[in-house]
Amino acid sequence: MTTPSGAQDPLALLRTEIDDVDAQVMDLLARRLQLVSQVGEVKGRHGLPIYDPERERAMIAAKRERAAERGLPPDLVEDVLRRCMREAYTHEKNMGFTRQAPDLGPVVVVGGGGRMGALWGRMFALSGYAVRVVERGDTPEQVAEALEGAGMVLVSVPIHDTVQVVRDLPALPADCLLVDLTSTKRAVMEAMMSAHDGPVLGLHPMFGPDVDSFAKQVVAAVPGRDAAASTWLLQQIRLWGARVHEVDADEHDHAMGLIQALRHFSTFAYGWHLAHEDRNLDTLLALSSPIYRLELIMVGRLFAQDAELYFDIITGSSDALELIERYHERYSTAIELLRTGDREAFVRQFGEVEQWFGEHADRFLGESKALLAHADASRA
Amino acid sequence: MTTPSGAQDPLALLRTEIDDVDAQVMDLLARRLQLVSQVGEVKGRHGLPIYDPERERAMIAAKRERAAERGLPPDLVEDVLRRCMREAYTHEKNMGFTRQAPDLGPVVVVGGGGRMGALWGRMFALSGYAVRVVERGDTPEQVAEALEGAGMVLVSVPIHDTVQVVRDLPALPADCLLVDLTSTKRAVMEAMMSAHDGPVLGLHPMFGPDVDSFAKQVVAAVPGRDAAASTWLLQQIRLWGARVHEVDADEHDHAMGLIQALRHFSTFAYGWHLAHEDRNLDTLLALSSPIYRLELIMVGRLFAQDAELYFDIITGSSDALELIERYHERYSTAIELLRTGDREAFVRQFGEVEQWFGEHADRFLGESKALLAHADASRA
Repeated sequence: MTTPSGAQDPLALLRTEIDDVDAQVMDLLARRLQLVSQVGEVKGRHGLPIYDPERERAMIAAKRERAAERGLPPDLVEDVLRRCMREAYTHEKNMGFTRQAPDLGPVVVVGGGGRMGALWGRMFALSGYAVRVVERGDTPEQVAEALEGAGMVLVSVPIHDTVQVVRDLPALPADCLLVDLTSTKRAVMEAMMSAHDGPVLGLHPMFGPDVDSFAKQVVAAVPGRDAAASTWLLQQIRLWGARVHEVDADEHDHAMGLIQALRHFSTFAYGWHLAHEDRNLDTLLALSSPIYRLELIMVGRLFAQDAELYFDIITGSSDALELIERYHERYSTAIELLRTGDREAFVRQFGEVEQWFGEHADRFLGESKALLAHADASRA
Repeated sequence: MTTPSGAQDPLALLRTEIDDVDAQVMDLLARRLQLVSQVGEVKGRHGLPIYDPERERAMIAAKRERAAERGLPPDLVEDVLRRCMREAYTHEKNMGFTRQAPDLGPVVVVGGGGRMGALWGRMFALSGYAVRVVERGDTPEQVAEALEGAGMVLVSVPIHDTVQVVRDLPALPADCLLVDLTSTKRAVMEAMMSAHDGPVLGLHPMFGPDVDSFAKQVVAAVPGRDAAASTWLLQQIRLWGARVHEVDADEHDHAMGLIQALRHFSTFAYGWHLAHEDRNLDTLLALSSPIYRLELIMVGRLFAQDAELYFDIITGSSDALELIERYHERYSTAIELLRTGDREAFVRQFGEVEQWFGEHADRFLGESKALLAHADASRA
């Protein structure tokens, strides 16, 4: 499209002015990051968590009001501020954190060379703990040396190795805290309880190793033995900005059947289906509604990752297969509604599910609108 | 958590400074919106589209460079600017658009009282067309009067009514353009072609009636008769900021089997499964990884919407049932991998799908990281 003459001049002028405004915005953003990193330093010195939900809510509410007073869309201001805060968390995480267990012996990360182990090792180091790493291939002498006087041992190895690695650990100091990061908990908790007579805690970070920071992330904590001996650790994790959700091993694994096993397996099955249908992916993308585009992205991303890891996660919970089979059964019952073209039954069952979701359905619809608008806006 | 004394004063000081920066940012955002709406006015006067992908790409690239020069994270600057641009599109859409068919008779929206019909009627009105609305319950005399001299008739009624509504249309002026907005095209194209001897075009907006603007949205266009007579309309839609994707009815419906029918049906089946498992939704949310939270949102949102509409969309394409059955079959084959615990076969098939996705898999992984980071940041 060519620009009709006559539009060019006023457009060029306005665009110069916009560039000017943007330059000033950038200066302010830089200044804001600087101030926020000073806040991070003060917080670090005084042992305050980098993420304070209460304060964040109050701050956002106040700024929305300021925006409305100025005739600015409050959603615009909230989104811009949240984006700045996200950057700030990433900045602050490198500021250092107050050490919650000043007298603890070294933290030994078994599997500390892996990406998840390295992330946790970095967080402990930033918080002033001495961090040692044990890796596959280390000699028994090296392992023994690393474990000498350890205050905590954190096992971060592939799921299917965890139980064996825990069993193979040499005797730990009696008061050493033994912790793992596996995404199914029953088996590993049993293994840790019988491998070590001292304090034991199970953790499951509900995020991958590539997060910008721990801020707003969730860590599930499964009590093992001597809860008092791991209070400092949960407090440390909260200080990093994460929310700790305490849950027992059975409830955790039961929930993970849905959250991990069924979810990832269905994504795998759908990708497999797509590949067999062998449609043209570019045509699909060209014709995609925002929601289907999001679905394609979420399916495709799985296959850029590690097949073994996903197999382990899917087969890791003992009752996942039954859950997946029940889903498959219900899918089959639902297909019957289509075969018979039973509109009334479909609408009735739709209503039942709506009731089950309750007020969440409307809330999710609202949240998804904001997310989809963001996904649209990022579309190049 | 109480703030230790000693941290309070420097924190309060820094926060006052941050508030000050935020106030200046808000002033600049207000100024930017003002400038952009002037750009919109100029564009409207000169018939330029509100969304210009080329220019947007160049602008973002330039600003990223400026950001890097200032030591600011380019992603931060890009995200903030895109958010501002999204706001701008919403603003600009109310600016008015150049009318692409100056001599066209009135645009009659059949079902113009519905949300989708109202959206399109508004866009035509903003572009200077006379818009008339025909609704269910109008008398034949009222309909005849509305259609008198019509330059275009746009049918926007529920899917399962569309064919009948088209058949029931009285004779249209010979050169009147007949258009529909239905989400499956084969049946309605046939109906339109036999109901009217003049120009015919099928449209399928790949978005709901609650979008902020047409900018960056996709509209599928299915040629019917006398393509030259609808060139102005496609141009008009592009001017509103949307991308028009031309496709024939068969290819369109084939793609929609995946994009709509299988997608929505699987979401329905999954919601039904969740309701029958009857887990505690709050526990699930508390333990959710960002991806599963996104999935719950996308499932829950379906049930806040119209059951009839989804039944129509799912059963609207003739081959959707077979596609859904094939998916169900493949799911069942995949379950066999779990039953036999065949890790090798799983990894092999995972690799096949990865190959099928090709370079898209990595691209999707990158895109999803940005989306998930955004979803995390919005989490209250």
